[in-house]
Amino acid sequence: MTGASDLPQRDFGALLQPRRFAVVGASDDMSSLRGRLIAVMDRHDFAAELIPISRSAAEVAGRKAYASVSEVPGDVDMAIIIVPAPHVPAVLDDCAAKGVKAAQIITSGFAEESSAGGRDLQAEIAAIAARSGMLIIGPNSEGFANLQSKLAPTFSPVVDLDGALDPPAGSRSGRVAVIGQSGGVGFSFLDQGRAKRLRFSHVVTTGNEAQVESFELVEWLVDQDEADVFILFLENVKTAAVFRRAAEKALRAGKPIIAVKVGKSAAGERAALSHTAALAGAHGSYRAMFRHYAIIEAETPEQAVDLAAGFAFMGDLLPANASTAIFTASGGAGGWMADNAAAAGLDVPVLDAATRRSVDAHLPAYGSSHNPVDATAQAIHHLGYAGLVELLRHAPGIGSVIAVASARLPGRIEEDRSALQAVRAATDKPVFFWSYTVPHPTAVEVLTSSGFPLFTNPLNCAAAARALYDYGCRRKAFQSAVPVPPVARPAALTDPGPLAEYQAHDWLRQHGLAIAEGSLARTADAAVAAAAKIDGAVALKGQARDLAHKSDVGLLALNVIGDVAVSRQFEKLMQTADAAAIQVDGVLVQAMAAPGVEVIVGVYRDPTFGPMVTVGPGGVLAELVDDTRTAPLPISPADAAALLAESRLADLLAGYRGQPAADRAALIQLIVDLGTLAVGHRDHLAEIDLNPVIVHADGAGVTVVDALIVVD
Amino acid sequence: MTGASDLPQRDFGALLQPRRFAVVGASDDMSSLRGRLIAVMDRHDFAAELIPISRSAAEVAGRKAYASVSEVPGDVDMAIIIVPAPHVPAVLDDCAAKGVKAAQIITSGFAEESSAGGRDLQAEIAAIAARSGMLIIGPNSEGFANLQSKLAPTFSPVVDLDGALDPPAGSRSGRVAVIGQSGGVGFSFLDQGRAKRLRFSHVVTTGNEAQVESFELVEWLVDQDEADVFILFLENVKTAAVFRRAAEKALRAGKPIIAVKVGKSAAGERAALSHTAALAGAHGSYRAMFRHYAIIEAETPEQAVDLAAGFAFMGDLLPANASTAIFTASGGAGGWMADNAAAAGLDVPVLDAATRRSVDAHLPAYGSSHNPVDATAQAIHHLGYAGLVELLRHAPGIGSVIAVASARLPGRIEEDRSALQAVRAATDKPVFFWSYTVPHPTAVEVLTSSGFPLFTNPLNCAAAARALYDYGCRRKAFQSAVPVPPVARPAALTDPGPLAEYQAHDWLRQHGLAIAEGSLARTADAAVAAAAKIDGAVALKGQARDLAHKSDVGLLALNVIGDVAVSRQFEKLMQTADAAAIQVDGVLVQAMAAPGVEVIVGVYRDPTFGPMVTVGPGGVLAELVDDTRTAPLPISPADAAALLAESRLADLLAGYRGQPAADRAALIQLIVDLGTLAVGHRDHLAEIDLNPVIVHADGAGVTVVDALIVVD
Repeated sequence: MTGASDLPQRDFGALLQPRRFAVVGASDDMSSLRGRLIAVMDRHDFAAELIPISRSAAEVAGRKAYASVSEVPGDVDMAIIIVPAPHVPAVLDDCAAKGVKAAQIITSGFAEESSAGGRDLQAEIAAIAARSGMLIIGPNSEGFANLQSKLAPTFSPVVDLDGALDPPAGSRSGRVAVIGQSGGVGFSFLDQGRAKRLRFSHVVTTGNEAQVESFELVEWLVDQDEADVFILFLENVKTAAVFRRAAEKALRAGKPIIAVKVGKSAAGERAALSHTAALAGAHGSYRAMFRHYAIIEAETPEQAVDLAAGFAFMGDLLPANASTAIFTASGGAGGWMADNAAAAGLDVPVLDAATRRSVDAHLPAYGSSHNPVDATAQAIHHLGYAGLVELLRHAPGIGSVIAVASARLPGRIEEDRSALQAVRAATDKPVFFWSYTVPHPTAVEVLTSSGFPLFTNPLNCAAAARALYDYGCRRKAFQSAVPVPPVARPAALTDPGPLAEYQAHDWLRQHGLAIAEGSLARTADAAVAAAAKIDGAVALKGQARDLAHKSDVGLLALNVIGDVAVSRQFEKLMQTADAAAIQVDGVLVQAMAAPGVEVIVGVYRDPTFGPMVTVGPGGVLAELVDDTRTAPLPISPADAAALLAESRLADLLAGYRGQPAADRAALIQLIVDLGTLAVGHRDHLAEIDLNPVIVHADGAGVTVVDALIVVD
Repeated sequence: MTGASDLPQRDFGALLQPRRFAVVGASDDMSSLRGRLIAVMDRHDFAAELIPISRSAAEVAGRKAYASVSEVPGDVDMAIIIVPAPHVPAVLDDCAAKGVKAAQIITSGFAEESSAGGRDLQAEIAAIAARSGMLIIGPNSEGFANLQSKLAPTFSPVVDLDGALDPPAGSRSGRVAVIGQSGGVGFSFLDQGRAKRLRFSHVVTTGNEAQVESFELVEWLVDQDEADVFILFLENVKTAAVFRRAAEKALRAGKPIIAVKVGKSAAGERAALSHTAALAGAHGSYRAMFRHYAIIEAETPEQAVDLAAGFAFMGDLLPANASTAIFTASGGAGGWMADNAAAAGLDVPVLDAATRRSVDAHLPAYGSSHNPVDATAQAIHHLGYAGLVELLRHAPGIGSVIAVASARLPGRIEEDRSALQAVRAATDKPVFFWSYTVPHPTAVEVLTSSGFPLFTNPLNCAAAARALYDYGCRRKAFQSAVPVPPVARPAALTDPGPLAEYQAHDWLRQHGLAIAEGSLARTADAAVAAAAKIDGAVALKGQARDLAHKSDVGLLALNVIGDVAVSRQFEKLMQTADAAAIQVDGVLVQAMAAPGVEVIVGVYRDPTFGPMVTVGPGGVLAELVDDTRTAPLPISPADAAALLAESRLADLLAGYRGQPAADRAALIQLIVDLGTLAVGHRDHLAEIDLNPVIVHADGAGVTVVDALIVVD
């Protein structure tokens, strides 16, 4: 793990808020991206001084041009670089010589290429960044937009509109910052969120990330309090420590991060690799890290924007529980929302009697106050949406309110403007609106200016309510990891590759793990003696390194009872090994484990994030129940308990079909102990798999039946 | 089952295409829905004659009004009724006397109310419908819109716009009909689909469905060839036979149905019940029926519209397989689509060498032809989207093409208009466009006029491709059920309630099912004799009706070997029964089953759709693997095989971790036989559960270990 003190902490002020900046490769040719870049910027009234750099033109976009940055008189804070790839290193050197503090490289043709030339060029950029101390974003980026200063050095068509950088008038949205490795996608969030009257602070695209990583921007924007909510489009995380520090700061500051992570599928990973040269990494590790830092994953563009809207409009109003009250003028739409709420993990309980009475007082006979409350058009007409929110927000045990509206006509919502503002100011529970019809712009204006998000997708609306609840829970539960110092490599873990099982067992047993009783026997007599020390039947297992699947090669005998049988099975296993030309160290004579719930516990080392622990059902279930949970290490007992609680293992451990409840506490302790051990030995342990672990009845502990250790 | 000949087959022509029609309750008061109804209609140039009926006004909306329908001179084809609920029966009687052929009741206040009065009023409507033969839609509906004749008797604000009923100029969309039990939601599909340039033929809202059911409209529109694709918003199906006939006709005609079914969750079901008085029914049965008839389920409004768009634009171009080729100018967006494709169940394989060569010839070094094809902005600029579709549509083993576009600027797409039309005419594989930026209206116009759907949601885009593939498969595989005649109630199934296990075993064994060997013993000696006839260990099970969980009350002994043990266990079970005051018939002495895969097979009777079969993992798996599959009965061997193939049982039966493959064929035969038996006895069998069924190694058959029969 990189120590926090080794991490870069860059000042992005020079890049995002320059006084004077150069555009290197500036052009008046509007058919090229170089020409479009300045034209797009000039549509907006930014305060900085733009200096064109051109090798051919004396003037660009009505400004005097210079042949190089070093020829510009006076200071230059930053440079936007859009010259052909082979010229980029020379331009950067020139910038560094001039004392330019930051540069963003738009140009493509670096590590995203399949050629060695592209990779070499990118390495050159990284080297210049390292030796000059200059902050460098890109290459292969699409620039950025600072919406607060209306500065948008980018050719993105999304910004090429009148007023594209103006905040939505009156909208009470918090500030949303977008950071995207992909430029096209990064700006698309701005495009989509604008229609929902989200207020954006920045869009920054980072391309290949030769130097600056996405999470450095998160950290700076959190530190400067320049944004309230983040949307990230990630192909990978390059430096885990950068990620950890920024994610923790954002979480502590209560600034949620919505992340779209591409590369979950094989094809997605291929695309990420060829696109910005990022190895996407195993998604399970990302999911674990996101969970740990309460980062919310989004799947589609609209979902990312909708989740951001939930946070941006509701701010600190997080649901205290996962129960929601739904009201509607359309019974059909109300039922639909109820189904979507259930799909998103919300409960929609019948409301308490007092709330129902207060609602019923306003309903015609064909209404219903159950939940969803079918208020009917009549009650909505009478009370307004604000009036119904007011009635429902007091319901005990309810964490949020969802208003199902037809916002096709703005009338009733517009009349309610002040009532909506009043109920927004009064409520301590979040309120979400879904319109099942295409909303009228005035309805969107009134609701967002009153501080409510308006969704057009019922699933996203419910998912936002759920995400706000989860965020609150995880923020409360968050504990930063207590560092575990690395441990020197012990003699037992010298040779790389898998240990023989008995070696793994001995080593883990020495470190306090509940390994099944047993010992290695090299002769039939020794096997009989070993078995005699064990109560009941034994298992015999042929032992050799590199022998993961003993049953496949016939080196396993279960339920062996009695001296004769032990002796006979020993000889049989040795003969089988001989016949298969397997050099065995002997036979492990092991106690058969008492019954219980079979679980797999494993640790592995993610190439980016380091040691991780996985827990899942064992035995036949492992094949069928795709429910393995992963968390970063070290792990606290509370987090291990939460991990189990989220998994289907929870049901299994609680006792099914009259089985006794299993020893959850012992399993949690095993997970924590294994995790601490693995973190200490992170430099020389590639993998440990305990499969199966038998979790006995409550109070009876656990038994590790089989363990695999792979030494690095 | 209602015979097909008993089913209504109504003529909806009088309703949807009237020459003269009355609006009963017409008013000029624009603050009321009654006033708005005619005003909305009059915004559109419909050809029929509208006759206002008003008890107070002599003229409404510039037309002479009559006090009642019977006073209108000449024929009246249909009536739209919007008078207070208590007056509706009299109005209907008047309409019937006048010879009006059809009526749509807008008025609320019927069975959706919690009062008996509302239910009685609705029953009165149903009675009038039955005795008059008049076609009646509603009550509690929102009218309809026939977009082809521009007739829209509804107060829906969605239709209250200039040009709201005009087809999207030039769009090559097929005709989409919407049928919604909920009026507000029904019209919202029109609202949402218009923006995507879907061509709608009708929106009909059916409310409480006192007489006419949604699927009658489907059938009529299929028969008349008035629509190509359906979007249904269903709270329930009232008559299974109506559903079956319409769904089969639509499937045979190749007219896909997209269904949103509310009431999946408890709260959704509550909402449906209070809203249109529909008992939603178990969703598992609906899912089974939808699967059988290749009806596609949608979860959100946008998804329903997007799936409909896939079918409406692609028509008969169904993917031959689930593999897709993706191309993009934005590597990030391409990777994102690849992840969404995987999530939707599509494969994104690396393309064949020949296709890659043909693509590579056009790519710069930083492009990639793997799949997703990162064509880069440069190749898109050069080839256009049409050019890339042309290259990819020939790739062998690829069933569809997904173009990932930025349609923010229309330029490149607009230039390509004729090329897009040409490639649309030439392709025999469907092609879907996703824009990751908000699309420019011109881009939408060009693509839809060329016959391509343009999605803004990548998951819906991929889901559409997958749905088209599934639809083709299921249409090919569809077999209408061969009717099984009902069987007279046998003596064994006389008393209602659960049979004792041994009775269930005997009866099922008589009908050829592979029940584990065993017999009832009433004395210890008889038990010893019964055990002696069985090889190996036996199970002893106390037998009484109403004794579902024998192990819970200690009336079960497993793995009993030898006369002494059998005799002792017999006595012990009898004593336990005595102590618990359970009147047992004796003890079932049963062979322990050979090992194999544990499966549960059950049949139950859905209140709407009749007998259904469920198959799922048994034992511990049943608790954890939520993967039970349901199908209507009778079931063919091919369909039973498909059901298994779709479930995780497929992996389990194929042999996991070196276990032998299980006897799939025997399990399929068991499912078919049980199904046929259950359908024959449908009138007196409530439920049969075979749990567990042990599926032995291939060729060794199955053994039913425990069976429960509940007599009706």
